[in-house]
Amino acid sequence: MRMKKISDAVVRRLPLYMRVLDEYSKTVDTPLISSQELGDRAGVSPSLVRKDLAWFGEFGKQGVGYDVEFLRNRLQVILNLDREVAVALVGVGSLGLALTRYVHRRYNDEDHFNLHVVALFDNDPNKIGANVDGIVIDSLDKIPERVRRHDIRMGLITVPAPSAQAVADLLVAAGIKAILNFAPIKVTVPEDVHVTSTDLSLEMQRLAYYSSQ
Amino acid sequence: MRMKKISDAVVRRLPLYMRVLDEYSKTVDTPLISSQELGDRAGVSPSLVRKDLAWFGEFGKQGVGYDVEFLRNRLQVILNLDREVAVALVGVGSLGLALTRYVHRRYNDEDHFNLHVVALFDNDPNKIGANVDGIVIDSLDKIPERVRRHDIRMGLITVPAPSAQAVADLLVAAGIKAILNFAPIKVTVPEDVHVTSTDLSLEMQRLAYYSSQ
Repeated sequence: MRMKKISDAVVRRLPLYMRVLDEYSKTVDTPLISSQELGDRAGVSPSLVRKDLAWFGEFGKQGVGYDVEFLRNRLQVILNLDREVAVALVGVGSLGLALTRYVHRRYNDEDHFNLHVVALFDNDPNKIGANVDGIVIDSLDKIPERVRRHDIRMGLITVPAPSAQAVADLLVAAGIKAILNFAPIKVTVPEDVHVTSTDLSLEMQRLAYYSSQ
Repeated sequence: MRMKKISDAVVRRLPLYMRVLDEYSKTVDTPLISSQELGDRAGVSPSLVRKDLAWFGEFGKQGVGYDVEFLRNRLQVILNLDREVAVALVGVGSLGLALTRYVHRRYNDEDHFNLHVVALFDNDPNKIGANVDGIVIDSLDKIPERVRRHDIRMGLITVPAPSAQAVADLLVAAGIKAILNFAPIKVTVPEDVHVTSTDLSLEMQRLAYYSSQ
């Protein structure tokens, strides 16, 4: 289905467009949206909107705009969010717990979120077997079997830095291609795997630069 | 002290260099580090390392490298992390709680983290007055007084989307110049205020694109 490699910068904006369209369809009673309106709401220029969406075929009609429902559905398909994406989280500390609940809440509250944490892993014997929002925490050696059984396609890493690479290796070996890493360390993965690192402590230290201007 | 406006891209890499230097000084018994070594460990090219650090004066010695201790201390000063940065968090839900604990743990465990959550705010009467890690949760109308008293210079927003802009306005009115926004919505602030948005649900939806290649 995918014809050419789409740049990460474009992919980054697609969920934002999807969110704008969701809100738009709830509040505005018209089936069409202009690139100007979509751009304004997403915080990007209308020409960039048109360029981004042109990657996926001819959605818009000159001088008329985009069909909101059609475009939203197309974006969902492009992002693989037209069906549920099963997610595994490794490292059920305070951040891991909070993220699990956060994802579950969005899954329950939003129509098109479609990401669902279905498996939790930790290496602490005191945590293994415990239940979070109905999910039993498993040991790390269960990762391959669980990934296969639940068709898990995304991994969240919330372990301490020294364990992050080993956990990433386990997820990759189990066939996962998309990883969100919260550990404050860079993890290395094969080329066909995509890792995004969200390093909260680096973000905060960076922001400190602007804290006393 | 700051002579010229440093680009955000440069500022973004400085905490990473600081972290590399911290680790380097713990494991390698030499007072110098080359731009090659620093770049390798930070995942950037040596020439970019030299360019970045040249913004802040002549640190390096040709063919010798950078003095690790001196450079680390300079980076701390540049990032305003040579003394403690007091942080306020607004929205003590599951994500807010986890972040508070996460920041406290890094503050206690790391020598140079120097960011400290000293005030918590929520508008839920059932939460106000409760105690998290020794900090009493206050109502939002206490923000100006607390910011003044504790010299708070950074705000974390972990409220639901519909409240995020109002909370940002309160933080800005209290004089805060650096905000980390976790609410899934864009907040607008005056030009002299710096906001970074960490939108976990957008990140996950974006990653979904790579989840089934």
